[in-house]
Parts: sequence; structure tokens; C-alpha cells
Amino acid sequence: MQLKKKPVTGMKDILPREMEIRDYVIGLIKETYKEFGFTSMETPCVEHIENLTSKQGGDNEKLIFRILKRGEKLKINEAKEENDLVDSGLRYDLTVPLCRFYSNNANELPSPFKALQMGNVFRADRPQRGRFRQFMQCDIDILGDPTNLAEIDVILATSTLVGKLDFESFAIRINDRRFLKAMAAYSGFPEESYDQVFIILDKMDKIGLEGVAAELEGSGFAKEGIEKYIALFDAIGEGLDGVKYCKDKLEGFLEPDVADNMSTIIESVTEAKTANFRIIFDPTLVRGMSYYTGPIFEICIDGFSGSVGGGGRYDEMIGKFTGTPTPATGFSIGFERIVMLLMERGFQVPGSADKKAYLLDKKLSSEKLVEVVKKAGEERKAGKSVNIVYMKKNKKFQKEQLQSEGYEIIEEIYND
Amino acid sequence: MQLKKKPVTGMKDILPREMEIRDYVIGLIKETYKEFGFTSMETPCVEHIENLTSKQGGDNEKLIFRILKRGEKLKINEAKEENDLVDSGLRYDLTVPLCRFYSNNANELPSPFKALQMGNVFRADRPQRGRFRQFMQCDIDILGDPTNLAEIDVILATSTLVGKLDFESFAIRINDRRFLKAMAAYSGFPEESYDQVFIILDKMDKIGLEGVAAELEGSGFAKEGIEKYIALFDAIGEGLDGVKYCKDKLEGFLEPDVADNMSTIIESVTEAKTANFRIIFDPTLVRGMSYYTGPIFEICIDGFSGSVGGGGRYDEMIGKFTGTPTPATGFSIGFERIVMLLMERGFQVPGSADKKAYLLDKKLSSEKLVEVVKKAGEERKAGKSVNIVYMKKNKKFQKEQLQSEGYEIIEEIYND
Repeated sequence: MQLKKKPVTGMKDILPREMEIRDYVIGLIKETYKEFGFTSMETPCVEHIENLTSKQGGDNEKLIFRILKRGEKLKINEAKEENDLVDSGLRYDLTVPLCRFYSNNANELPSPFKALQMGNVFRADRPQRGRFRQFMQCDIDILGDPTNLAEIDVILATSTLVGKLDFESFAIRINDRRFLKAMAAYSGFPEESYDQVFIILDKMDKIGLEGVAAELEGSGFAKEGIEKYIALFDAIGEGLDGVKYCKDKLEGFLEPDVADNMSTIIESVTEAKTANFRIIFDPTLVRGMSYYTGPIFEICIDGFSGSVGGGGRYDEMIGKFTGTPTPATGFSIGFERIVMLLMERGFQVPGSADKKAYLLDKKLSSEKLVEVVKKAGEERKAGKSVNIVYMKKNKKFQKEQLQSEGYEIIEEIYND
Repeated sequence: MQLKKKPVTGMKDILPREMEIRDYVIGLIKETYKEFGFTSMETPCVEHIENLTSKQGGDNEKLIFRILKRGEKLKINEAKEENDLVDSGLRYDLTVPLCRFYSNNANELPSPFKALQMGNVFRADRPQRGRFRQFMQCDIDILGDPTNLAEIDVILATSTLVGKLDFESFAIRINDRRFLKAMAAYSGFPEESYDQVFIILDKMDKIGLEGVAAELEGSGFAKEGIEKYIALFDAIGEGLDGVKYCKDKLEGFLEPDVADNMSTIIESVTEAKTANFRIIFDPTLVRGMSYYTGPIFEICIDGFSGSVGGGGRYDEMIGKFTGTPTPATGFSIGFERIVMLLMERGFQVPGSADKKAYLLDKKLSSEKLVEVVKKAGEERKAGKSVNIVYMKKNKKFQKEQLQSEGYEIIEEIYND
């Protein structure tokens, strides 16, 4: 009976104060995406080990919690390596399960399928401050829509959500993998070095344009190309004019359609947005994952480094899994990061103020108790949260505690 | 790249139609318990293997999904048995994690602590129709309140919830472990045979009072005692009169306080209830788990055999885990069962009717697209769910599909 009190290494208990904010954000996410025609779906936390180790998960595949085979299938004596012992594992993201879900259920799903998936994912990562081995992920995906309506949809829905969370100002940065490639081609970088170039470019935020130039030079790229490359970034504006500049300048390297596509997205979002934010064309935006094939985007909040959500088009991934090519656009909300930011700024969940507590005398008659319970029922019907508790010896401390939980009205009840 | 399409054995993908109902029920649960002063909390899905195998989980401990140790800790060659390979497992219920949570965080929690915990639990059970190896559990617990206010609270809150779900009529059956014991003592059964007697009594629903008598006789109990026992059940009414009858009849076997306690609960719930249900004193109610120490209760819905939720007082369990005696009352909602019943009766989530879809001509100009997207934004602000999709070749089929998803208004958009 020696109970271990702490959670398993790297995981955490979530206390009421944080849960209130989490529940509020979850409710807001579901409500907002529903308004945009998204439907919720869910996959199990446990996934086939084969699916988790199919090379689509990158480094995350090193971080799998593996689950032991059960019963007769488990042969400890014969086992030589991990895979002899396991048949499944905890998912490290929601994308692999989404692909499996889609391939299993496509016949019963509308097309395009606009999915909202929220769920816990698990990574046996090195424990770090503020990063846990179980955390909530929240993915929005549109499967089966090859048009820019998908990008417009996920960007408008997600910005509407962030707007509702009272962040003072935020921005959506947008780019397109095909712009990135065209700019590299225009500058004369060899195609096989693109990934290397983009990894260096991705450090812009930290080392600046000059730092990027220096690192490219250090990697042995031709000076002339680097200068051409850097000059491009210097010249490009952050709105529709930037896109126009690219369309003209990169002629022969960039399909005009791709530029027009970007213009329509920026224009539609700017015209139709309901939240207060800017959409910024940012040709330095890379986003790490190599599976993106078209537009890519990120949400940044002023005063906070790093993004609180991002995504893009990945038209080739589902087909690799399912055998059926399926255009796809996704946006992943940084749920844990948003909750952390709200906690830090002492965010109050709207409507949580209307809380009342009854403090009962220990010797209250059962008639009087019935009376209070009845009255509380009526107040709840009228929309209040009502708590009923017995008085403790240290009434002063008890009242302070109730106040700290948000009970502004506290009524003491005695026998008459 | 051979993706396994089906979920892991015994687990399931949840499609949008079911998820809509699940999300609705989850929202209602959170809202209702919040009104009663409960706060949400969460524990990780992964728990120390020591805690999961501490003999508090009964048969569920045979059904644990065990998680392999990672890195240097995993020594396959030296392993002799399962426990050499694992350090944690997936939780099979929410009670063990609640006890650990409470012992870890009691200093930061109010007293009494009124907790709502919803989360997935995992059992490597034999796959059966309608039962899955991952399912949602939903537990309400009041820790630290020794009074019947705890029972009144959980019963009123839970009945309010069930009432909101439009079940035509339902009942709450209530009993008390101490009544069960007093009745057995009064009838002359020896104390060490109580558990055996209760197991037989628990079959009442299926075999009737006569069946219970026959089985008791078959087990070798004295005929006189059995007759006395059966006569008791025959004579007891289902309301306050039944409690009064027991108080008088069982004098010397039942503390009068225990009967008064039961009367106050029944009276308070009857007076203060906001939903349409009956609370029935049922001296044949046993509930399996041996850890109950006081009142026990179940919710039954007319026309459905089995309960959709149940619980009781378990004042001795937390102390066994934590070393600090803590009174506790809990109610577990049969979440999966409720969702199943709602699905079966074709339940429509309220407010889901207000859905509109725009069907766009494939050749729509980007100006016109911006116009539609803008209009949709305004309609969403006014509370509608609005979906925008491009027309497909088979427009008729596409419209039917949208209608089946609840889009009652479908507007086709072409260039003027």
C-alpha cells in the first residue's frame, strides 16, 4: 500500500485553477470551429506500433511509450529486442491517427472532410521546464479540398478563436513552400541543397538576415547567389505588394498561379476577418516539417517569442499512408502554450464571477437544510453557481478560501 | 508504409455524428456540476505500475496495459517477468488516480474538495459488443465532507444533469451499507457470511425475492433466518415510510442516526429536485464494490435494464492510500451508456439545426469568393454555423449529403 504520490516522471496533475481555463479554451475551440462547419472526431490514444514507426513521425518516433503485449503473445524468454515485446504504443501526435482514421472511415465521411481533433499525445522526451510528457494537442484539418478555400477557412476560423481569447494583438505570418523554392532557384542554389538553405533561413528570427548570409557563406554557397538571395528578402513588402513583387521578380521560377493563390488568401482573410490581427506575407517563414507542399502559416502573439499555432498544406502525406492521393490543409493550435499565456496573465474565465456560497451552522436542523438546498436549486436555475458547505472551526480562514475560489457572496445560515 | 487501417484491437474511432453527442454531453456535465460548486481536475492517463497493482482495483488489475521501460532502464536480457520490463501502465479507472492526486495536492485544494474528473480509462478486457478497451469515465467526488450534504449534493447535481438529457423518466435507488448489515444481523446471518449473502441479494433484479430465498437455502443458511430476511424486504415501502419501518423494526441492529440520515437525504432530494424523477429507498440495492461504507445509490432509466450511473460513500479508501482518513462520497456517470442511449433514440443536439452551406461554382472569381466569405463571417457572428464548399460534378448527391449533415439552407453561388 505504498502509494506513489507524484505523477509519473514528466507528467502532471492539473489543478482546478488551470482546469477552469483549459475547459474554457476547449469549449471555445469546439464552438468556434463548429461555426465554420468543422466536426469533431476522435481516435484512440493507443496506436499500432507499426503505424507509429512508419517514418512519418521524424524524431518523435524515438519518443514512443511502448505497450507490452498481453497474455500468450508475450514471450519474455524469447524476446531479443523491444519490438518482440510490444504491439502498440501511445500516439506522439494526432496526424498519424488522422491518416489512419481517414483511410478507415473515408466512405462515411463528407468530402471535403473538415475535422477537429483534440486529444492527449505522449512523448518520452527529456523532462524540461513547462514541457510535459503528456499534453493536449488540437488539430484542425481539411481533407479533400485542393483549393485555397481550405487555407482561407482554417486561417479565418483559427484567428476568430484567438481573437475571442482577448489577446491584445496578434499576427498571422504566411508563406508558401513554392515561394521558398522559387526564391532559392532564382538565387542559383542547387536544388539538392534547398533543405539545407531553408534550415539556415529558418534561423532568421534569432540571427537576422546578416546572420543568415554569414551562415550560408560558411556552408560554402556562392557569394553571388547569397547576395541575390538576401537582396530579395530586403526588397519584399509584407502585404499584397510583396506577393506582387515576387510574382514579377521570380518570373520563370514561380508559377503565376501560385502567386495569385497567395494574393487571394491574403485578400480574403483581410476582408473577411472578424478579429483584430494582421496577415503578413513572410518569405522567411520555413516551418520545419518537410511534408508541406503549399501555403504555410503561423500565429504570433505580440510580446511572446515563438508561435502559438501553425500549419499548412500537405497534399502528399495522406496518399503515402492510404494509397489514395488526398489534398490536405491543417492548422495545429498550441493549446498548452495558449493556456500557459492565459495563466500568466491571470486570465479570468468570463461568467465565473457569479458564484455564491452558503455556510451552514454545524447544528443546522434538517428542515432548515432542505430549505437552503431548495433555494440553491432556484438560484442555479437562474444561472448562478452555488456551493453549500458546513462551517469549520476557523470560519475566517474558510471564508477567505472561498473568496479566493471566486465566491463573492457568502451567506451564513443558522437555525432561527 | 503498410498503414494498419483499423484501430488497435478493441478500441474505436469516433465518427462526427457520435462526437457531436459526446461533446454535447461533456459540455452539459461540466456546466451542471460547475453550478453545484464542483471543479474540474485531471490526472495523466499513465500511472505508476505500483499504484495500479496495489490491490484496490479488484479484477481490473488483471486488465492493465503495461508500458515498457525506456532507455537504459530496459534490460530485456535480464528480464524474468513482466514487472522487470515495465514501470507504468494505463489507468483502468479514475479512482486510483484521484487518491494519488488528492494525496499529492491536498494542501492546495479546498476542503471539502468537490471534484469532477472526466477522462479515458483503458482495460485489456475481452472484446465484446459495445464495450471497448478505451472508454470515457466521468467521476464526481466530494472529499472531506462527513455529512449527508455530500450525498444530497451529488444526487441533486447528477439528477439535474440526467434531467437535462431529456430522458422521459428515471429513478434514483438508494440504500445504505449499514442498512444491509443491520438487516442481515436482524435475520441472524453470521457476520462473516454477509458478503456471501449480499452477493446473492444482488441478483434480486434477475431472480426475484423467491430466487434469492432459494439460493440462500442452497447455500446452507438456516431456513428461519431466510424467512425473516425475506419478510423484511416484503414489508418495506419505497419511501420515507420504508426507512421509518426499518428504524423501528431493526432497533438494536441499526443506529437510529443512520436511519435519520437516510430520511434527510430522501426528504431533501425530494423537496429540492429540479428534474422529474423519484428517489426510491431500495433495501435490495447492494452495488458490488466492497469499499462502500455508507449510503449507496444508482440511477435507472425506464425501459433500460442496468444503471446509467451509481456511487456511494467510501470513507475508508483514501486513508488506505494516503495515510490520512478522509470521508468521501462519489458518483460515477455511465458516460458511454448515456451516449449509446442517446444515439439509439436519434437524439438531436439542441441548436445544431441552424446550419447553412454555400455551394460555390468552380469558376468563381476571387472577388465573389471574398464576398461570400465575408457574408459567412457575419452570419457566424449572428450565431449560425456556416460551411463553404465548392460544387462537385454530382451536385445532387453533394446536396443530399450536406442535408444529411444538417445543413438545411444551401445557397448556390455563381459569378453574376
